[in-house]
Amino acid sequence: MEETRSRKLPVAAKDARELAAARPLVESFPSSRKVEQGELRVPMRVIALSDGEAPLTVYDTSGPEGIDPRKGLPKRRQAWIDERLKTSDGNLSQMHYARAGVITEEMRFVALRENVQAEYVRGEIARGRAIIPANIKHPEIEPMIIGRNFLVKINANIGNSAVTSSIEEEVDKLRWATRWGADTVMDLSTGKDIHETREWIVRNSPVPIGTVPIYQALEKVKGKVEELNIDIFLETLEEQAEQGVDYFTIHAGVLLRYVPLTARRVTGIVSRGGSIMAKWCLAHHRENFLYTDFDRICRLMKKYDVSFSLGDGLRPGCTADANDEAQFGELKTLGELTKVAWEHDVQVMIEGPGHVAMDKIKENMDLQLEHCHEAPFYTLGPLTTDIAPGYDHITSAIGAAMIGWFGCAMLCYVTPKEHLGLPNRDDVKQGVITYKIAAHAADLAKGHPGARDRDDALSKARFEFRWKDQFNLALDPETAYAYHDETLPAEGAKKAHFCSMCGPHFCSMKLSQDVRDFAAAESGMADKSREFLQQGGEIYLPKDDAAAE
Amino acid sequence: MEETRSRKLPVAAKDARELAAARPLVESFPSSRKVEQGELRVPMRVIALSDGEAPLTVYDTSGPEGIDPRKGLPKRRQAWIDERLKTSDGNLSQMHYARAGVITEEMRFVALRENVQAEYVRGEIARGRAIIPANIKHPEIEPMIIGRNFLVKINANIGNSAVTSSIEEEVDKLRWATRWGADTVMDLSTGKDIHETREWIVRNSPVPIGTVPIYQALEKVKGKVEELNIDIFLETLEEQAEQGVDYFTIHAGVLLRYVPLTARRVTGIVSRGGSIMAKWCLAHHRENFLYTDFDRICRLMKKYDVSFSLGDGLRPGCTADANDEAQFGELKTLGELTKVAWEHDVQVMIEGPGHVAMDKIKENMDLQLEHCHEAPFYTLGPLTTDIAPGYDHITSAIGAAMIGWFGCAMLCYVTPKEHLGLPNRDDVKQGVITYKIAAHAADLAKGHPGARDRDDALSKARFEFRWKDQFNLALDPETAYAYHDETLPAEGAKKAHFCSMCGPHFCSMKLSQDVRDFAAAESGMADKSREFLQQGGEIYLPKDDAAAE
Repeated sequence: MEETRSRKLPVAAKDARELAAARPLVESFPSSRKVEQGELRVPMRVIALSDGEAPLTVYDTSGPEGIDPRKGLPKRRQAWIDERLKTSDGNLSQMHYARAGVITEEMRFVALRENVQAEYVRGEIARGRAIIPANIKHPEIEPMIIGRNFLVKINANIGNSAVTSSIEEEVDKLRWATRWGADTVMDLSTGKDIHETREWIVRNSPVPIGTVPIYQALEKVKGKVEELNIDIFLETLEEQAEQGVDYFTIHAGVLLRYVPLTARRVTGIVSRGGSIMAKWCLAHHRENFLYTDFDRICRLMKKYDVSFSLGDGLRPGCTADANDEAQFGELKTLGELTKVAWEHDVQVMIEGPGHVAMDKIKENMDLQLEHCHEAPFYTLGPLTTDIAPGYDHITSAIGAAMIGWFGCAMLCYVTPKEHLGLPNRDDVKQGVITYKIAAHAADLAKGHPGARDRDDALSKARFEFRWKDQFNLALDPETAYAYHDETLPAEGAKKAHFCSMCGPHFCSMKLSQDVRDFAAAESGMADKSREFLQQGGEIYLPKDDAAAE
Repeated sequence: MEETRSRKLPVAAKDARELAAARPLVESFPSSRKVEQGELRVPMRVIALSDGEAPLTVYDTSGPEGIDPRKGLPKRRQAWIDERLKTSDGNLSQMHYARAGVITEEMRFVALRENVQAEYVRGEIARGRAIIPANIKHPEIEPMIIGRNFLVKINANIGNSAVTSSIEEEVDKLRWATRWGADTVMDLSTGKDIHETREWIVRNSPVPIGTVPIYQALEKVKGKVEELNIDIFLETLEEQAEQGVDYFTIHAGVLLRYVPLTARRVTGIVSRGGSIMAKWCLAHHRENFLYTDFDRICRLMKKYDVSFSLGDGLRPGCTADANDEAQFGELKTLGELTKVAWEHDVQVMIEGPGHVAMDKIKENMDLQLEHCHEAPFYTLGPLTTDIAPGYDHITSAIGAAMIGWFGCAMLCYVTPKEHLGLPNRDDVKQGVITYKIAAHAADLAKGHPGARDRDDALSKARFEFRWKDQFNLALDPETAYAYHDETLPAEGAKKAHFCSMCGPHFCSMKLSQDVRDFAAAESGMADKSREFLQQGGEIYLPKDDAAAE
C-alpha cells in the first residue's frame, strides 16, 4: 500500500491551492469550528451565534482538516480493530458482534452522533434494520449508521470514466462532497488507474466508501462480458476489500428469467452493473453467477465486514418503466438474498430506483420493507419526471425527500449533470446540498428528535434580523452570503431590518414585530381571542354545514 | 395610457440587445417553432425530432416574438370583449357567463390548450372550481385556466423594490419568465414608478398579471398604515383594474381576532399584505376594512372581471409555525369570503403557504378544499425546511410538487434568492424551470391525460442515443446542450452511443440494447418467463411467509 502511494504523487504541491477542498473549512462555514466529543472523539461542528444566542452543534462529515492527501487520514479506528482481531472468530461484521450482544466502539460512536443509546444501535444492527459500513481495512472512517430509525443519510457518487477526470480531481471531489455533508461516497470509476484512484480515495475518506466491483472485474476481462466468472469477481472483491472499501454494490438479483421482462420497456436496463449481468446471463443462458455463488461472496465479505448494497440492476430508467414486473421481481430476489447474507451475519442494504412518478413512490418503499425484511433501503432519487435533463438534482430531490419520509434510509444524490456528463466539483456540491435538503426535509417530516432545532434557530435569526446568524446556520453559508451581498454588499446591511427583496418599507418581518409589540401592549388580547374561538366563534366563523349552503 | 407610454421610453434601443428576452426563441429552444391552432389562434410550440420521429407539440406561454416593448403586444382578445360589451349587464366575469350557460371565446381557447371540451371548462368555471383570470382591460393575454382538473400552473413573481431594479429589467424578467413557462406573473413592485412599471408589464404580458394592491395603496398614504381606508383602497383597485391587472391578492381574511394568535409564533406574520392589515386592525382596534367592505370590492371587480386571489396573510413563515390556529382560522374566513364573491359571480382562488414540513402538507390541501368549497388553491411552495437559504427554489419545489399532486391548482415559484434579495433574470429562470418540474411531476402523479407524452418521447430519445432530440425535448435545452458539451463538445458526440458519465464501455443503455437484441433472438423467452412467474415461480421465489422465517 505504501509502495502504491509512493509510486505516484497525483496531488502536486502547486496544485493543492487550486483544489476546492484544500480551502480552510472556515471559508465554507464562517463562524463554525470543529470539536471532538467524548473519549471516542466524535466530530461535531459548532456554529457560534450572535446576541447571546446559544451555539448550535450539528452533525459533521467533513473529516480532519489540513491533511496531506499523500499521507492520508489518521487511522482512528485502528486500535479498536486490532483489539478485536485478537479474539476474532473470523467474522468481523458489526452484525456479528451485535447479535452476540457486543456493543462495539463503532456502535457507541454512532450512538453519540445520533443522540441515541448505544444499546439501541446494537439492537437495530442485530435485527438487520440498520448497518454500519466499516471495513476493518478502512480505519480512517468516522463511523456512521444507515437505517430508517436514524437520520436520513446521503451518498455522493464520484469517479472517473474513460473520457475524463484525474485522480487528483476525484480526491478533491471526495473531500468537497464530505465537506458539504455526504455521509458516504461511491467511487464509480471505470476509466484508467481504477485501483490507484480507489486507493487515494479510501485513504483520504472520513466516510464509508462504496464501489461496484463488477466494473473492475470487467476491466480485468478487457470488457468482454461473456468472460466474467465468479473467480475473477471474487479476486476483485478481495482486492477491493483489502484496500478498505466499505460496501459493495452487487447485482445478484438480476436473474435470467427477469431479463426478458425488460424487453418491452421504454429504456430497457439502465443500471450499468445490471446490464452487464443481464448480458452475461443471456450470453451463457445460465443463472447469474452472483446469485448462484452468493454464499462464497458472503464468506469473503464477513472477514472484512464489507456490507452488501444489493444492486437494483433492473431499476426503471424512466417513469414509464417504474414499478414493473422486472423491477419488483428483482426486489423479491434481493429479499431472498438478504436472508442468506444475514445467515452469515453480513450487513445488507438494498438499492432502489431510479425514475418513479410521485404516485408510485410509496409502493416502492412498502414493498421493499415487506420483501426485504426491513433491511435499509438506499435509493437513487427517485426522479419524478424525465423532462428536465440539467435539473435532475431537482426532479430527484422531490422523490428523494418523499421516499426518505416514507422510510428510505439513504438517498443517493443526483447532480445537475445526470444523463449528460461526469459531474465536476460544482456539480458535486449542488448535488450534495440538494440531497441534504431532501434528507433533512425527510427527518423533519418523520419528526426525528431534534431535527427541527436548526430550522428553528435559523427562523428565529431570520425574524430577529440576525442576518449573519441566518447565513451561518444555512446548509451553504457561502452561497447565502453571496446572494445577499449581490444587492446589499455594505456591512451595515447585515444588521438592517430589511433586505433588497422588499426594501425597508415593506418588510413583513419588521411590520410583524411592530404587530407583536402592539399585541403585547394589549395585554390579555391573545387569551380573549382564544377564549372566543374555543366557545365556538359562531358570529364570524360559519360552521362547515353553513358554509356548504 | 398612450400618454403614459410616450412619456417615458425605459427600453432604449441600444439596451434591447442586452436583454435576455430579446434573444430569439430558437436560441432557447432549438428545433422548436411556434404555431397557432384553429380560428382562435391558440399558441403551441412544436418540437421537431430526428430519425422520422413524430414532432411533439407542447403548451406554450412565451407569447408573440419580436415585439417592441414600447408598442406592447397585439390585443388579441379585443374583438371578443367589444362584442361582449354590446350586450353586457355590467358583470363581465367569466363566471357570470359560465353560470348563464355561455361558452366564451376564452373558455374555448383554454379548452384547446388543455385538450378538453369547452363545455367542461364552462362547468368548472360555473362551479367555481376553476378560474380564467382575464381582465377585459388586458386584451393582450392568451387565456389560461387555473383549476385542479387542469394542468398545474405556475406563477412567477417579479417587481422592483425601493432599493433595486428598473422598469426595463422588470419587463425583461416578465418576458423571460413566460419564455420558460410562467403561466401567470405577479408584479410585486413596491419601489418607485409603481404605476409606470405595471403599465409596461401589463402591455407586454401574454399571461395574466396579478398584483397586491395594498402595496400601492400604502404608497398613497406615504407608508402610514393607520391612514389606509377602503376609499383609498378602492381607488387603487380601480386604477389597477383600468390598467388591466387580471387578479388581485387581497388580504381580507386577516381578522382582528386572529392577529394575537400570531404573537407566540417563531416568525410572526410574514406576508407583507398580511402584516400591513394586521397592523391596521390593531392600530384602530377595528375589523379589517377589506373584510367589512368586501361587497364593495366585489362590485368593482366584476365590472372588469378581475379575479380574487384571497391572500393568506397569516401563512407560516417557518416550519415551526405551520398549520396553526391563526393560519387555519384565516383559511375558514377565506372560505366565507369565497361564498360572498361567488354571489357576485366574481372568480376566486385562495392563496396558501408558505413553510410546511412534508407531513403537514396534505392537511393544508384537504382543509382548503373543505373550507373554501373547492375554489382553486394557489400556494407559495411550500418550503419543506428552513435551513437552506440560497436553495429555497429546491426546498419549496419538494412541497410544491406534493401539494400539486394533492390538488393545488397553481404553484407560486420561489427563486434561489428567496429570503436574501430580489431575483435577477437568472434567478427568475431557475425559479420557473424548477416550478415547471414541480408542476409537471404533479401532472404525472395525477395521471393527467397526455402529461406523460413528453417524458416518454424524451426517454425514448435517450435510449436511442438521439442526443439532440433529448436536449430539444428538455424543459431547458440550452442548459442540457451546455452541460453535455462541457465534456464532449465534438459534434460527433451527439450521435455517440455513450456520454462522459460512463464512457463507451460502460454505457448501460448501449448494453441494454445488446440485451434487447439477444432477447429478441430468443423468441418466446419473454412469454415463457411470464408464464413461469404466473404459475407461482416457487422454485426461486420464496413466498412471503417462507421469507419471514
